[in-house]
Amino acid sequence: MTNLDSKWFTEADYTNGVAFSLRVTQKLHEETTPFQHLAIYDTTDFGKLMTLDNMLMVTDRDNFIYHEMITHPVLFTHPAPRKVAIIGGGDCGTLREVLKHPDIKQALQIEIDERVTRVAEQYFPTLCESNRDPRAEFHFEDGIKWMANAKENSLDVIIIDSTDPLGPAEGLFNEEFYRQCHRVLTPTGLLAQQSESPLLHLPLLQSMHQAMRQAGFGRTRTLHFPQCIYPSGWWSVTLAGMGDLTEFRIADVVHKHFETRYYNADIHRASFALPTFVIEALLD
Amino acid sequence: MTNLDSKWFTEADYTNGVAFSLRVTQKLHEETTPFQHLAIYDTTDFGKLMTLDNMLMVTDRDNFIYHEMITHPVLFTHPAPRKVAIIGGGDCGTLREVLKHPDIKQALQIEIDERVTRVAEQYFPTLCESNRDPRAEFHFEDGIKWMANAKENSLDVIIIDSTDPLGPAEGLFNEEFYRQCHRVLTPTGLLAQQSESPLLHLPLLQSMHQAMRQAGFGRTRTLHFPQCIYPSGWWSVTLAGMGDLTEFRIADVVHKHFETRYYNADIHRASFALPTFVIEALLD
Repeated sequence: MTNLDSKWFTEADYTNGVAFSLRVTQKLHEETTPFQHLAIYDTTDFGKLMTLDNMLMVTDRDNFIYHEMITHPVLFTHPAPRKVAIIGGGDCGTLREVLKHPDIKQALQIEIDERVTRVAEQYFPTLCESNRDPRAEFHFEDGIKWMANAKENSLDVIIIDSTDPLGPAEGLFNEEFYRQCHRVLTPTGLLAQQSESPLLHLPLLQSMHQAMRQAGFGRTRTLHFPQCIYPSGWWSVTLAGMGDLTEFRIADVVHKHFETRYYNADIHRASFALPTFVIEALLD
Repeated sequence: MTNLDSKWFTEADYTNGVAFSLRVTQKLHEETTPFQHLAIYDTTDFGKLMTLDNMLMVTDRDNFIYHEMITHPVLFTHPAPRKVAIIGGGDCGTLREVLKHPDIKQALQIEIDERVTRVAEQYFPTLCESNRDPRAEFHFEDGIKWMANAKENSLDVIIIDSTDPLGPAEGLFNEEFYRQCHRVLTPTGLLAQQSESPLLHLPLLQSMHQAMRQAGFGRTRTLHFPQCIYPSGWWSVTLAGMGDLTEFRIADVVHKHFETRYYNADIHRASFALPTFVIEALLD
């Protein structure tokens, strides 16, 4: 019943019985790094594609939604973010969005696999266009260890832009890690983490909220958006903080001096409006 | 590069270079109707699946989003809908949602292919649970001809729940058809039509808005939502009417006496908040 010829890259999710495929024209790069299998393809309709361990990570065509939605809602919710750390984010698309904010003084990127960044620099130059910004600082090391050693009260925002909670990223989805994040954030600090699909991964979302609360974050809130290449085509980001997460710097969004293609003030508000079945699952 | 074994049903969209697959356990039914190829599968994780001409149409697991979002936003935008026509909608899920509204006096379903409804009654009994509601009236005929012959000023709401604008449904996406809808609707009447993917089909959305305006509808507005099994996992519905489409009967939504799993008052508002690239495309 499969009618795809060989010219497709398919990510099959056997746990959820879904698969998504992009039609490719050629494999441009392939290597096994110390951490994972990394490949780059050219596609017929989505530009370049990066895969990690045979999972679809980034394409030229649709990455703007994810990168904007993991960055701008949390940065415009924080009253005055100056120092930001990105855990993961090796393709540098999140870093680029962070550095669009003129008041950011320093953006630290802690990516375990330097090869992801080096290969992204070659094949996704647009995502990497801010890598030489003097405010960017790269640390190619384990984000969990880095956070455990980071100075307390030293960060305004932490963005966890990781792969799925399997393999290298597993330790980024539990209470101990969140406790370290809480320690390293200032009292007004905010955490934002990619939190998978509301349709397929609701139990993970529930456990993330619970672990964040247990780690000391008084408030948690999930936003959602379409993301074509991730399982179910629907993805989420969860915010955690000590105070209210419903207000944001709306005037700064309306008058921002940089372009976004998905995010705007109405989308900010709308992305936090949750479907009834998600509200019911996250009530606890 | 394809790693699916034979136990998957795949819909490949060669125009957009994307494919989506569900893992199936068996084919339960297959026939060629006078209009299309119709099949039913059992899947590992999405319950029953209906395909038409090898395109994924409905699954047990995720159809609630589409059916709620093509129905409740338009019905709660109309001040007092009493008589509704559904063009297409053969699986009867939209009809079920319409009939949840207690003030609806009559719901006409105009589906060209009676076999879709008969097979849905067998394999999707939940979607068809309101088929024997005395307010439901089935017409198995061509929706375009039916609309051309319908009495003017006779309907409050028209919902066009069709397949893609190829084959039998092509004539449901043009000015002439919208002109007939406009004639048949009362002055406060509203039309709602499934309008494909904001990511993949933006030119179609543009032409729909334009054709609806040319047909006499003063206002048009698109809402969007995730829909796992349709191309890109992101889908839309476009409303057309003579007056404002931003207000809705919010108190009636909050106090509704029926359950919804996706739709609620916040989602209603949020679903009309459009991404910047869509706003820019639809401005004209």
